[in-house]
Amino acid sequence: MEGEEIKMEAKPENVVYIGKKPTMNYVLAVVTQFNKGMPEVMIKARGNAISRAVDVKEIVVNRFMRDLKEKSIQTSSEEVTGEDGTKFKVSAIRIVLGK
Amino acid sequence: MEGEEIKMEAKPENVVYIGKKPTMNYVLAVVTQFNKGMPEVMIKARGNAISRAVDVKEIVVNRFMRDLKEKSIQTSSEEVTGEDGTKFKVSAIRIVLGK
Repeated sequence: MEGEEIKMEAKPENVVYIGKKPTMNYVLAVVTQFNKGMPEVMIKARGNAISRAVDVKEIVVNRFMRDLKEKSIQTSSEEVTGEDGTKFKVSAIRIVLGK
Repeated sequence: MEGEEIKMEAKPENVVYIGKKPTMNYVLAVVTQFNKGMPEVMIKARGNAISRAVDVKEIVVNRFMRDLKEKSIQTSSEEVTGEDGTKFKVSAIRIVLGK
């Protein structure tokens, strides 16, 4: 499940990768990082998960940690290799929240 | 105050609302606005369409109009009234591109 992501990068603790789990799982993950003392947390998502990433950010900021600031929102286009070896582009988003 | 609301409802030409149509329809809509002489175009989306809005932005900027600049990306949470009258929150995104 997570194997592929680990290969891609070192997966630093303060990055929350948005997948297909329920939104609140990721909200909890972000809040937990801040409660551990992280000054910033990055929310990352690709493709259809981008909408969920924005949900996570909005819920964290509006419902759980109203003192947080949005440090940056960046979008990009990443090249992904499909199971059959074909390459295609997928959009990505990175949202950085900080205290 | 009233004036502002009317303005918002008026659906200005340089705002492209992302729905469920194929992504390239919206890409074409954005490019058309710039070709008409608009200095800025706003891409707006709510809920699941947010991912498509990011796709539209990435395709316009990377494939069609490489000289465009990203002016701003904002996310928000909007209250929507469902068909049965219940109110719920939905995330939204606004991406402004400019020359």
